[in-house]
Amino acid sequence: MMRTRPLKVALLGCGVVGSEVARIMTTHADDLTARIGAPVELAGVAVRRPSKVREGIDPALITTDATALVKRGDIDVVIEVIGGIEPARSLITTAFEHGASVVSANKALLAQDGAALHAAAEAHGRDLYYEAAVAGAIPLIRPLRESLAGDKVNRVLGIVNGTTNFILDKMDSTGAGYQEALDEATALGYAEADPTADVEGFDAAAKAAILAGIAFHTRVRLDDVYREGMTEVTAADFASAKEMGCTIKLLAICERAADGASVTARVHPAMIPLSHPLASVRGAYNAVFVESEAAGQLMFYGPGAGGAPTASAVLGDLVAVCRNLRGGATGPGESAYAALPVSPMGEVVTRYHISLDVADKPGVLAQVATVFAEHGVSIDTVRQQGKDGEASLVVVTHRASDAALTGTVAALRSLDTVRGVASIMRVEGE
Amino acid sequence: MMRTRPLKVALLGCGVVGSEVARIMTTHADDLTARIGAPVELAGVAVRRPSKVREGIDPALITTDATALVKRGDIDVVIEVIGGIEPARSLITTAFEHGASVVSANKALLAQDGAALHAAAEAHGRDLYYEAAVAGAIPLIRPLRESLAGDKVNRVLGIVNGTTNFILDKMDSTGAGYQEALDEATALGYAEADPTADVEGFDAAAKAAILAGIAFHTRVRLDDVYREGMTEVTAADFASAKEMGCTIKLLAICERAADGASVTARVHPAMIPLSHPLASVRGAYNAVFVESEAAGQLMFYGPGAGGAPTASAVLGDLVAVCRNLRGGATGPGESAYAALPVSPMGEVVTRYHISLDVADKPGVLAQVATVFAEHGVSIDTVRQQGKDGEASLVVVTHRASDAALTGTVAALRSLDTVRGVASIMRVEGE
Ligand SMILES: NC(=O)c1ccc[n+]([C@@H]2O[C@H](COP(=O)([O-])OP(=O)(O)OC[C@H]3O[C@@H](n4cnc5c(N)ncnc54)[C@H](OP(=O)(O)O)[C@@H]3O)[C@@H](O)[C@H]2O)c1
Ligand SMILES: NC(=O)c1ccc[n+]([C@@H]2O[C@H](COP(=O)([O-])OP(=O)(O)OC[C@H]3O[C@@H](n4cnc5c(N)ncnc54)[C@H](OP(=O)(O)O)[C@@H]3O)[C@@H](O)[C@H]2O)c1
Repeated sequence: MMRTRPLKVALLGCGVVGSEVARIMTTHADDLTARIGAPVELAGVAVRRPSKVREGIDPALITTDATALVKRGDIDVVIEVIGGIEPARSLITTAFEHGASVVSANKALLAQDGAALHAAAEAHGRDLYYEAAVAGAIPLIRPLRESLAGDKVNRVLGIVNGTTNFILDKMDSTGAGYQEALDEATALGYAEADPTADVEGFDAAAKAAILAGIAFHTRVRLDDVYREGMTEVTAADFASAKEMGCTIKLLAICERAADGASVTARVHPAMIPLSHPLASVRGAYNAVFVESEAAGQLMFYGPGAGGAPTASAVLGDLVAVCRNLRGGATGPGESAYAALPVSPMGEVVTRYHISLDVADKPGVLAQVATVFAEHGVSIDTVRQQGKDGEASLVVVTHRASDAALTGTVAALRSLDTVRGVASIMRVEGE
Repeated sequence: MMRTRPLKVALLGCGVVGSEVARIMTTHADDLTARIGAPVELAGVAVRRPSKVREGIDPALITTDATALVKRGDIDVVIEVIGGIEPARSLITTAFEHGASVVSANKALLAQDGAALHAAAEAHGRDLYYEAAVAGAIPLIRPLRESLAGDKVNRVLGIVNGTTNFILDKMDSTGAGYQEALDEATALGYAEADPTADVEGFDAAAKAAILAGIAFHTRVRLDDVYREGMTEVTAADFASAKEMGCTIKLLAICERAADGASVTARVHPAMIPLSHPLASVRGAYNAVFVESEAAGQLMFYGPGAGGAPTASAVLGDLVAVCRNLRGGATGPGESAYAALPVSPMGEVVTRYHISLDVADKPGVLAQVATVFAEHGVSIDTVRQQGKDGEASLVVVTHRASDAALTGTVAALRSLDTVRGVASIMRVEGE
């Protein structure tokens, strides 16, 4: 069944992303018509502040009653770019109930309620697309769930937050401390006034949950994602990283266990070798590195945020769901058939870089080495530097479980000769 | 309409790629079933040499009569991994006539006859997918024609041939000459015994035609692609590139003209700045850099060839066309509505790095500079180095048309004081 009438689009939210969606829908209307096979028409725009001037948008389309808009009955596609959990969630559910397909950029909502929303879409035979929710403009959801549909993804390593990558890149290239780099990111508009969601890794954790779910055909909830922010990364950590031929990135890491029987998802700062393709991702750019069984190593790189880039992803989804509606079909829905268990952080296996402040006297190294051995953590290299009766000891381990490392560190802290644990950093991407 | 019976797949060709397709279809049958919603069954395998032992493939499936296989009438999907123009073209056309969808990895055929094959697919309401034809495992066709469907692509810069990238990377990192690097590539299996298709840029040109067609929604024929190989790149060129903070890559470049009214497609070696993401693409890896209006700069990176990686792309397409068949739908077909004219090489505008051998006497620089000025080619920098009465002059220009540069070079050659034009290299990606 082919519809010849225009497809009607309701835009919920007209902020940074929504205003760009509306602008491109207007300026590129002819291209969209040609690519979809039918015109798309902006049928209504829901906002909070109706009196705000919105350039290029017919004021008659503006409404504050988003619910009435999605219930109108003649809407084919709802684009949700409000953000947050409510009212976005109820609006999307109502949209499906009234026969619309939905395009959303809402990572927080998808990470928390993706399964329920997918179920609602399926129950009504409609599409839920959200390419913009992870890594902004970078095509990632579609490649993972369609291009790699015949392959087996084993690991996803992503720089999925531009704010923190900007800060870490600054620290790396200038030697600045965290606060100084954050201040610059704020001044330049890369960090929000309250940067918590970014620097504490909440934003990246939501994206990790979404990526892991798609990569492993398994439901991964936000609570399943281990999360550690990057506010405690110091200039000294960057100096240590350099000595190892590494840099430091805040990574979202989704992994299949070696036996294939479980998966993990986590967000934390980590050292990665300078030779790794992710190491040269500069400024606020995002990149996601995917390791799969047949395809091998792939990387997807681009702007992870911003009005126009995010709108590009939203509009790609809009074209896809419109084509599906015209063809009477739906795209691939949720794929969670593998239903693998998500293991806790303790079972993650990786390498560690540990800096200890120790007393500068004979036997300390032997003591420290014994603690590692007792916990089954094998040491790769040790470097000791003395300074005025104190010394610093840098230990790099072979692969060990997070639980074993945690046990080791607790035991080290209880040694008289260990004055402090200056830093613990995971080493990834080798 | 949902089919519950297994989907039957005919595999045409069982060489480097085909044998991996068959292997993964067998070992990952359960995953494919779950992702498609129905089992896929290998119904026949066409080869040239029936007696060759093919591990893991039921000998009863092997046939040398590919035509009879695609005409059987019960085949849902034909996977064409024979390569070349005939019999691949006739087999694909016959497949559509008998109701099958087609997945192909055949860049040569798609570049030459893509339009006709797309028309045949559309006439029979079937899919033609070919993710593997460009840059092997890297998801590229799908992101360009689906993810960026709401955006406007202005430029595609790609390293789309692994053999030549391996050779150029070797020359760059070791200072080796072309022949030495080629010999190593041959010894390691990265180059074929007859490397012409790779080193003369024919392979990359086919991919450029396909990429330009999809990026600009315009038919671009293989003949429309300007092509220059990389056999004349020297160690001296790499030394010059280094002095400019550049390296040399064989690039496939598809561009929309500044006025948007035409496009160009070309393949040639070019200098690119070390800071450009393509500069750090090592070994036989491929990467494609895409500049679009809203999304900005994106890059897709991964293995461009090899049995398993290419099979990954083929199987991703297989899952997609099977899902479409089950849903009674088809994916996006050819999109050539923009029908922009393809301009000849003379109209390409870029920068140039020119090395001249000149007489070392006063007035030469003025003479040379006058020739550039007379042809409307503005000079950015000049560097002169004297050696025993001879001198070398390195000129880097501002942006100028290829026609203007060609005119300049012809005029330079006719100057008494110019002994020779040692090299002309385009400078891209700035
Ligand atoms: N910004 C980015 O770079 C980016 C990147 C990737 C994904 N995203 C996601 O995209 C979504 C939108 O982000 P944004 O940056 O565009 O946010 P934003 O600039 O804050 O815009 C939010 C819009 O929603 C409207 N709104 C808020 N509450 C509403 C309500 N109850 N009913 C109707 N409209 C309401 C606001 O109206 P007023 O205009 O009247 O205030 C505003 O137009 C979020 O899910 C975000 O995570 C954003
Ligand atoms: N290899 C790669 O890395 C790569 C990467 C991207 C794309 N591709 C594309 O994939 C396609 C296949 O490449 P390949 O490397 O797999 O080639 P290949 O190793 O030479 O295999 C070709 C296969 O086709 C069979 N064949 C040849 N002529 C035939 C005919 N007339 N009827 C039936 N079968 C016939 C051969 O049979 P026998 O086995 O009996 O000789 C062989 O199994 C090409 O289009 C290529 O451009 C390859």
